[in-house]
Amino acid sequence: VLDPRAFLREKREGRTHAPEDLRAFISAHARGDIPDYQVSAWLMASFLNGLDESETDALTQALLHSGRVFDWKDLGRPSADKHSTGGVGDKVSLILAPLVASCGVLVPMVSGRGLGHTGGTLDKLESIPGFRTRLSPEAMRSQLDALGVVMVGQGPDLAPADGKLYALRDVTSTVERDYFIVPSIVSKKIAEGAGALAYDVKCGNGAFMTTPEAATRLARRLVRTSERLGARAAARVTDMNQPLGIAVGNALEVIESVEVLRGGGPADVRELTLELSAVMLRLAGAEPDHAVARGRASRALDSGAALECFGKMVEAQGGDRRAAEESRLAGAPLKVPVTAPVSGTLVGVDTFALGDLVVGIGGGRRSKEDLVDPRVGMRVLRRIGDRIRAGEPVAELHLASPDESALERTRRAFVIEDRACGAPELILASVESATDC
Amino acid sequence: VLDPRAFLREKREGRTHAPEDLRAFISAHARGDIPDYQVSAWLMASFLNGLDESETDALTQALLHSGRVFDWKDLGRPSADKHSTGGVGDKVSLILAPLVASCGVLVPMVSGRGLGHTGGTLDKLESIPGFRTRLSPEAMRSQLDALGVVMVGQGPDLAPADGKLYALRDVTSTVERDYFIVPSIVSKKIAEGAGALAYDVKCGNGAFMTTPEAATRLARRLVRTSERLGARAAARVTDMNQPLGIAVGNALEVIESVEVLRGGGPADVRELTLELSAVMLRLAGAEPDHAVARGRASRALDSGAALECFGKMVEAQGGDRRAAEESRLAGAPLKVPVTAPVSGTLVGVDTFALGDLVVGIGGGRRSKEDLVDPRVGMRVLRRIGDRIRAGEPVAELHLASPDESALERTRRAFVIEDRACGAPELILASVESATDC
Repeated sequence: VLDPRAFLREKREGRTHAPEDLRAFISAHARGDIPDYQVSAWLMASFLNGLDESETDALTQALLHSGRVFDWKDLGRPSADKHSTGGVGDKVSLILAPLVASCGVLVPMVSGRGLGHTGGTLDKLESIPGFRTRLSPEAMRSQLDALGVVMVGQGPDLAPADGKLYALRDVTSTVERDYFIVPSIVSKKIAEGAGALAYDVKCGNGAFMTTPEAATRLARRLVRTSERLGARAAARVTDMNQPLGIAVGNALEVIESVEVLRGGGPADVRELTLELSAVMLRLAGAEPDHAVARGRASRALDSGAALECFGKMVEAQGGDRRAAEESRLAGAPLKVPVTAPVSGTLVGVDTFALGDLVVGIGGGRRSKEDLVDPRVGMRVLRRIGDRIRAGEPVAELHLASPDESALERTRRAFVIEDRACGAPELILASVESATDC
Repeated sequence: VLDPRAFLREKREGRTHAPEDLRAFISAHARGDIPDYQVSAWLMASFLNGLDESETDALTQALLHSGRVFDWKDLGRPSADKHSTGGVGDKVSLILAPLVASCGVLVPMVSGRGLGHTGGTLDKLESIPGFRTRLSPEAMRSQLDALGVVMVGQGPDLAPADGKLYALRDVTSTVERDYFIVPSIVSKKIAEGAGALAYDVKCGNGAFMTTPEAATRLARRLVRTSERLGARAAARVTDMNQPLGIAVGNALEVIESVEVLRGGGPADVRELTLELSAVMLRLAGAEPDHAVARGRASRALDSGAALECFGKMVEAQGGDRRAAEESRLAGAPLKVPVTAPVSGTLVGVDTFALGDLVVGIGGGRRSKEDLVDPRVGMRVLRRIGDRIRAGEPVAELHLASPDESALERTRRAFVIEDRACGAPELILASVESATDC
């Protein structure tokens, strides 16, 4: 039997845990046999003294095996999924999941809600009237078999130890470490049963990782750990120094997603969706060549095949398919333009501030109990590098009620200076699966 | 209001807490407003990143003010107390408390139970039939006024935050740090209302501090923190590389204490008792000169004044005074000599092993629920530096039932070699109050 005090002493002194001890510790916590106060002391010791790769693997395995692990192999098709570390305006999942499914690869996507200043796929989907994000395992299986895609929330039996551990990390200031973040993400993705994983590691002032170095390090660790747990994996480090696309806010992002599914929409949203879809198709073995895979993904958007799959999924999950497809979602009562105070070039956007503002006007949660207003948000009308004249609108706020301070904070988030500035790259780095290269 | 997460982040990053923040954190924990899991993460962060002197003071104040703080000034006499960091055979408190009281200084002594391999004053006192270690504050006051001495356990209202914090340190492997140990000791001693404090920091293989350097550092911190909290203080670092005196075990130690109170008993017990009593008399202002104070203490033993005070205290606290004074306490059914396997000089004693053995044969507790057998223990017949012949007894075990392994372990604790070895010094270092020198 594991002695929790000796285990704590080991990490306190900077030693490395035996994988079986670490698994036993986390499993015992999940079962309620080790109390929170011993685990939180371990979290702090690990935060300060580190976990190496073998410990990160062991932690991932312990979280994974704390609950149900899905397996879709009997459905006879490859499966894949994507995970984003979270940003502002990132609606890629809504487009990519039906797109990849329409190309013959199963997408058993388990998503989360908004965290901090970022949006969450579940919150966006729930702005479609009637859409259910809780399905039984049986319903997931039959929908996957019929449509190739399902988009649901994390049920209580999927990596339950992770939920327990995350809640403890949140309240003990032990969140920001790769070796805690990676097991939390990878365990849930492996538990979903996806055989191939594409990671989108956001980088910039609207992301949790602010430097390309930190983001690339996290991307490598996500790929390596996923592979050691038995999945194929690759990652892209992508820019989050301005919102992705134009729409920020739940219903607004669904509407923009449908535009992209119709072959239109903002160029950056389409570009990132195609890139990540191509990675998934390639990793899943549906198409070995990346350029060819991109071409297939592109055709799925332009032909309406991806939109058709999206519509069927909405319908199957109880949502109002016509309202979603025809963008007839409830809108905010107030639409207020935010104008540029001076002329010049847009040289920067405080993306965190914009994400946080959308949460603040009701588009997200400050605490678990908060209700989300799907109608509110903003449209970001100008991009970094654009020339702007004083008085021109840079954004449009969608509000539930008048809010002068929101207007002023939005205005201040756009940095306009009298100098030239290029548009930033969208894809900053690629991490390919070790088994691929 | 304090944000516990920001507070944790501060220590995680090695920064120094504002004293008011640290006090607020500990007070909130004591009230139940901050959960154990946040405090245990803080304990680990502090264990690894340290607390400085201002933080140690703040922690001491927070523990102190979590409960009742006694004040005996209206009784019109100076007060003093002694604290030992714990050893094997250390029965000094039982002699010193009535001794100092018989010299006109109030001794409001709050003691603890055995911890780990060490004995506890409360357990020893309870080997006297009827002796009560729980008194109401009113009973403490009237007994102090009448007899000058009271010896009790820590009531639930004396520094309750310390008990809560200690329990958490124990289960999270965050015990061994001066800046946790000092506030725990000093807060309780100040809360007792003693105006002068003598610390006996044990050092050696039977103590928690094994090197003179570590023990002296702890002694300095105890004295400085006590002074900053408003008490006069001094410390002695004393040898614990062999048990103090001959008797180890609860009833055996009471009997030896009475021998010393009668002017006899082992020389080292008498010597250390006189030294610490003199420190208390001096710090309390009863006698400015150390040598004169020692002389007064010595006379209190030889005249029977200290014994008289001891007897009255036992009586006042419900104990069988005659049984205590006449050493008619229940004895163990088995008394087994442990003999030297070879001839030579006693060059070392595994004091930890002996203390642990006495706990193991029933003289202490492995867990909180264990019952203590007051009868068991051992008499340590030879001291380091003594010449011994093979077959001579080195110890006498007092057992409740036959125990061959205890015999063998006792024998192995005495290291006999064929070389000369001097007797160790009893008092290794002195730390005087800064206001004294």
